[in-house]
Amino acid sequence: MGRPGETLPEILPYAGPHTVIDVPSRLLMGPGPANSHPRVLAAQTLPLLGHMHPPFFKIMNEIQEGLQYVFQTSSKYTLLVSGTGHAGMEATITNLVEPGETIVVGNNGIWGARVCDMAARYGANVVNLEKEAGKAFSFDELSKAVTQHKPAVLFLCQGESSSGVHQNLSGLGKLCKDNGTLLLVDTVCSLGGVPMFADDWGVDAIYSGSQKVLAAPPGGAPLFLSQRALDKLKARKTKPGSYNLDLNLVGDYWGWFGGRSYHHTGPVSMWYAMREALALVGEEGLPAMWARHQRMHEQLWAGLTEMGLEPFVEKPDERLITVNTIKVPEGVDWAAVVKNAMDTYSVEIAGGLGPTVGKVWRVGIMGYNAQPQNIELVLAAFRDGLRKQGRLP
Amino acid sequence: MGRPGETLPEILPYAGPHTVIDVPSRLLMGPGPANSHPRVLAAQTLPLLGHMHPPFFKIMNEIQEGLQYVFQTSSKYTLLVSGTGHAGMEATITNLVEPGETIVVGNNGIWGARVCDMAARYGANVVNLEKEAGKAFSFDELSKAVTQHKPAVLFLCQGESSSGVHQNLSGLGKLCKDNGTLLLVDTVCSLGGVPMFADDWGVDAIYSGSQKVLAAPPGGAPLFLSQRALDKLKARKTKPGSYNLDLNLVGDYWGWFGGRSYHHTGPVSMWYAMREALALVGEEGLPAMWARHQRMHEQLWAGLTEMGLEPFVEKPDERLITVNTIKVPEGVDWAAVVKNAMDTYSVEIAGGLGPTVGKVWRVGIMGYNAQPQNIELVLAAFRDGLRKQGRLP
Repeated sequence: MGRPGETLPEILPYAGPHTVIDVPSRLLMGPGPANSHPRVLAAQTLPLLGHMHPPFFKIMNEIQEGLQYVFQTSSKYTLLVSGTGHAGMEATITNLVEPGETIVVGNNGIWGARVCDMAARYGANVVNLEKEAGKAFSFDELSKAVTQHKPAVLFLCQGESSSGVHQNLSGLGKLCKDNGTLLLVDTVCSLGGVPMFADDWGVDAIYSGSQKVLAAPPGGAPLFLSQRALDKLKARKTKPGSYNLDLNLVGDYWGWFGGRSYHHTGPVSMWYAMREALALVGEEGLPAMWARHQRMHEQLWAGLTEMGLEPFVEKPDERLITVNTIKVPEGVDWAAVVKNAMDTYSVEIAGGLGPTVGKVWRVGIMGYNAQPQNIELVLAAFRDGLRKQGRLP
Repeated sequence: MGRPGETLPEILPYAGPHTVIDVPSRLLMGPGPANSHPRVLAAQTLPLLGHMHPPFFKIMNEIQEGLQYVFQTSSKYTLLVSGTGHAGMEATITNLVEPGETIVVGNNGIWGARVCDMAARYGANVVNLEKEAGKAFSFDELSKAVTQHKPAVLFLCQGESSSGVHQNLSGLGKLCKDNGTLLLVDTVCSLGGVPMFADDWGVDAIYSGSQKVLAAPPGGAPLFLSQRALDKLKARKTKPGSYNLDLNLVGDYWGWFGGRSYHHTGPVSMWYAMREALALVGEEGLPAMWARHQRMHEQLWAGLTEMGLEPFVEKPDERLITVNTIKVPEGVDWAAVVKNAMDTYSVEIAGGLGPTVGKVWRVGIMGYNAQPQNIELVLAAFRDGLRKQGRLP
């Protein structure tokens, strides 16, 4: 059965679309995806290469060089996980934590909660260090947890996009190293928008997303391991739980160990896009990018403050600049403001997520979208939305 | 640490590319990826939508309708796994096999071997049903294994791309149902090129790849579950090992259960591409596609036979038409033929993989590339390569 010419069942009719694809054009100023740079989208129309062709390896090398720069590392252990940020999250966990080992999870929003779920599935002993959404962890809290549990891994989220909190990483590299712990950091919505110095800060593993500040489509998860993390991977007693995310194998496709072995078929167009997105980062330079994101954050808040709106995160130095959380004033219909922004201006601003649903709006300032005209449009949308509810003259 | 204005370490210089991306144009006639249809690549330049926007849900719905057609099912349990074919493979295994349950793996090439590896990582009891590469399993062999082991899952590969074998699925649906077994089929390189009637044949789970006959870039894995497979998933005693691939959660993002929950950020551009690729399948129609692939297979073999080349797969009805394996004649340098094809004509033909390395060439006839002019170019490349080794006048 299954060869042409043989008797086959009656065919079910095609019920899908018959038209050429068309989608509306929107300005994505929520927590991501953000709009991609046109040069990045255009790269995806280039002809496909084979996943083991030398010109494709050149693209992979260029991606790794770009990632070394955005992570600020000289470690050669960088790659793109073939999946979205969640695949990057799962890759770090299934590779760095063996069943029965302890992971301390800084959980002050939905990302920590997801790490707890994933780590438990892989048989880890999970210490859930919970904290109210909207607050960062202090060094003392983390120091206490690490010295008490001496975990294999400490997880923190640099940019908590559900709450808009920026986690300070100062001193944590040394703390972790002194306690035999690997420091794992989620930078999905922060990488490229705020400083990250993987080597200098002693971070051991990072994952991120392609579709935020890096301004590429979703589908690739930048990943970094320090030498210490790689040593841990190599010294595992058991295979990582996932074949697809086994960094011994994926790393060997990316040339980590000197050769190139086939593991899976890299998503060719997506990697073209990321290569181009990283070239754009190189053209602008990280200090200029960080400064641009900071300026746009200030422009946004100058306008919001004028409208009487307030930040959800109390401490100024804990406010994330790439995903801004704005308190919904008592009695305001937050969803109507979001809907009005989309219906009237084709601009996305978002409500809360997880612990912040109904409490905040979220405005992303990320990558290609971090431009003054886009901030002004967001402010116009807020003004119009609040006016329609009689909250502004 | 990590906020602009604070004292930061000295920045490591950017060492990545400074140019705009450029890649050579190649005709990919190996086992995949194949070239995408230009309309499919162009879809990837459309502006990104948010992963929870209604117009994006419409794209997802259209993909599901297209997948129902290519799988020939009225089951609503279809989706794209956000990853490559390997992610599809792993998704079926981590969801359908609980730790301690048995999976019988038809292993006649590298895909069966990978399933064995994956299933073992997830704690399955793996029965490795090995068979020489180049031969399909007989119904009797499979019947014996299923009745003996009564496994939770029987795995088979419809198109074994490392050996070029087409597995007949006749009668297996009933056999599996009668034994409380789910029938899981890999169609990565066969879907759309040869008949598949998921409902009529009683198949319970299928995964595939985007970058083969469906003529989209790699990065999406079409997946199908029967009602029986879904019931099994719902009745699990343990959570699937992978969060990222948990089909309870991924399915809820795809609307399987009536609502839409955020699970991960769908790779937007990739799904645009798949929507467009499936619309093209609908325009041509499956019977026409199957017939086209069959004609191209015959055109290829008419030319190869004239050169004295022979199929690796002995039995004619076990020869896969989408990935053709060609015996390397005694004394011929297979790699020189491959290299000459690329260097002279920019056309990819491939050597063997796993058990067939050094024994075969592999020629893909897939999707947009399955056109007479491409077959002629492959034949010209073989002729030229063999002439240069003095094997043809």
